[in-house]
Amino acid sequence: MSTEGKIITCQAAVAWEKGQDLSIETIEVLPPRAHEVRVKVEYTGVCHTDAYTLSGNDPEGEFPVIFGHEGAGIVESIGEGVTNVKVGDSVVLLYTPECKECKFCKSGKTNLCGKIRATQGKGQMPDGTVRFRCKGKELLHYMGCSSFSQYTVVADISLVAVDPSAPKDRTCLLGCGITTGYGAAVNTAKITPGDNIAIFGAGCIGLSVIQGAVTKKAGKIIVVDINENKKKMSFEFGATDFVNPATLPEGVTIVDKLIEMTDGGCDFTFDCTGNVQVMRNALEACHKGWGESIIIGVAAAGKEISTRPFQLVTGRVWRGCAFGGIKGRTQMPQLVQDYKDGKIKVDEFITHRHPLKDINKAFHDMHAGDCIRAVITMD
Amino acid sequence: MSTEGKIITCQAAVAWEKGQDLSIETIEVLPPRAHEVRVKVEYTGVCHTDAYTLSGNDPEGEFPVIFGHEGAGIVESIGEGVTNVKVGDSVVLLYTPECKECKFCKSGKTNLCGKIRATQGKGQMPDGTVRFRCKGKELLHYMGCSSFSQYTVVADISLVAVDPSAPKDRTCLLGCGITTGYGAAVNTAKITPGDNIAIFGAGCIGLSVIQGAVTKKAGKIIVVDINENKKKMSFEFGATDFVNPATLPEGVTIVDKLIEMTDGGCDFTFDCTGNVQVMRNALEACHKGWGESIIIGVAAAGKEISTRPFQLVTGRVWRGCAFGGIKGRTQMPQLVQDYKDGKIKVDEFITHRHPLKDINKAFHDMHAGDCIRAVITMD
Repeated sequence: MSTEGKIITCQAAVAWEKGQDLSIETIEVLPPRAHEVRVKVEYTGVCHTDAYTLSGNDPEGEFPVIFGHEGAGIVESIGEGVTNVKVGDSVVLLYTPECKECKFCKSGKTNLCGKIRATQGKGQMPDGTVRFRCKGKELLHYMGCSSFSQYTVVADISLVAVDPSAPKDRTCLLGCGITTGYGAAVNTAKITPGDNIAIFGAGCIGLSVIQGAVTKKAGKIIVVDINENKKKMSFEFGATDFVNPATLPEGVTIVDKLIEMTDGGCDFTFDCTGNVQVMRNALEACHKGWGESIIIGVAAAGKEISTRPFQLVTGRVWRGCAFGGIKGRTQMPQLVQDYKDGKIKVDEFITHRHPLKDINKAFHDMHAGDCIRAVITMD
Repeated sequence: MSTEGKIITCQAAVAWEKGQDLSIETIEVLPPRAHEVRVKVEYTGVCHTDAYTLSGNDPEGEFPVIFGHEGAGIVESIGEGVTNVKVGDSVVLLYTPECKECKFCKSGKTNLCGKIRATQGKGQMPDGTVRFRCKGKELLHYMGCSSFSQYTVVADISLVAVDPSAPKDRTCLLGCGITTGYGAAVNTAKITPGDNIAIFGAGCIGLSVIQGAVTKKAGKIIVVDINENKKKMSFEFGATDFVNPATLPEGVTIVDKLIEMTDGGCDFTFDCTGNVQVMRNALEACHKGWGESIIIGVAAAGKEISTRPFQLVTGRVWRGCAFGGIKGRTQMPQLVQDYKDGKIKVDEFITHRHPLKDINKAFHDMHAGDCIRAVITMD
């Protein structure tokens, strides 16, 4: 019996309050309205951003809410006017939407679509309302996705149909971390063959930057991480060097070390940590005259980056990107194809798996440090 | 009688100590050694950088020294191996040299030649010695130029021959401020027609940025300055708008104002003040997704720029440039031609003139605020 047009009752991980474990609840998911799509989520990743907002440190975080933004599934039903997907399509959710109509989308200079930014930031659908109910309360959406629910409703510009033969427990991870790092390297940075690269932080994003740097035929690909356990995987992904700043001799900074290793500094550096002191080091390790540092990590609320302006006057460039500068609806199908063709590693990121009922374990895994990505099976 | 190979005795403005007026002295100028050129300086500009180092706030400033880095004159004699200029050539001095051989020059990515950087920074010629003597003491060189002397010796990579028909009391100003601002707009920034620009600080550099923005057919060219007297000249140079931050309504920041005037932010902003809070405003007034802020001003020692990394993650870019990114030996002859052809204004910058003996007046003029550039006649 079709569920189209009806309220669906299903399981979801609800965040009732900041700093508390998620609670598995039976919730109601309302039908999609105009230009909305209801998706049966099959798999979701768990990302540091979910943990950050859950912690309460995100000043814009509001509760109760359903987190999750690395989701893949099947279109269950579509609202009026939806033309870009149809019932049954295999889709990846996009926390960075792409309307193809706004000033940002039409600029050709950025992937930061502005169409639903205001309501997405407030945890609402574009019409200012929500589609989740539980115990008589309305639940907020999160990053336009809310993939920690067996069914979710998203704007039609917040998802993209992809090759149905690609396994969804892998494609879900293209919805954030992997694409963010890979895109930063192949899209935001203009790496040319032989360029020397440094990557600060070898988590999901940092390892994906390595993949992008390898694709672009970079020269030295230097991973900087204080966790020695990241060394092996960094080399497996294509790093040429690994530096643990904690083991440098007294008086030698990581900036000194990288400048020495690269005869003057790196052509491109990437911060994948969210730590503002690391961001400064990443900038200052760039080559005078042309080195560019790209901030990918999300800093804690209120934190600021600093440097002497001399660093920029002498030619270094400080920039950043979100979602790797990738336009989801336009570019995601090719990324999925690249995965299928063996050009982008995804399987190797999955270190942990859990059913939805054990989703809190995924948060604990992440804090333990040896986890790259945990994938949650929703059924 | 030729002076070639002999010590020349002449007048120069000597800075014996920080914070003191310059002293007009009779000095000895030694002959040029290999790959050096002795120049009869005819005109020099006086720049804020000279005043900054004289003030003692520049931690790298050493005394006694002969300042001045906006110089034009005639080649008096050349040392062994000099091939790029000959005796009698009209030249402009270059505080940013161009050797065409070092890693930087050959990169094609920067104008920051590295060949004599270390000795230039120490106030020495490339062999580690100096060519100035006065009262039994050696005097240091400054920025590879020392144009506050009737004769100076510079490295052969620190000057360029230009069209002798161009008046040297004008071309001297192409040695720093005008080129720095103009180059930042036409060279460092990739302005496309219709782009909205904001320029913080309408001194020599800021007015030159306007010229570059006009050349690039920018849309709005908004000048931001707290000195209302800069308004008239800004419009004469091609500004479309002038904003005095001191006159904004309570609660409206200059960032708010610029974002409102440009429907989301500027495509490019330029700091021509050296004030780190202004640099921050310039960045944050850029359009989300693509706006770029270019730092041109030189900050006081120890000052740092700061912002939330979110500003960069959402697509703004922070960069800087020195000497407008212009390669002096390669590009200066064309700039001189552009001046002769009426494409670059220079005459309009000259608000004050003094003979060498009154050079201290030029410093006082500058601090008074209504001066754009004072030109010193050396004879």
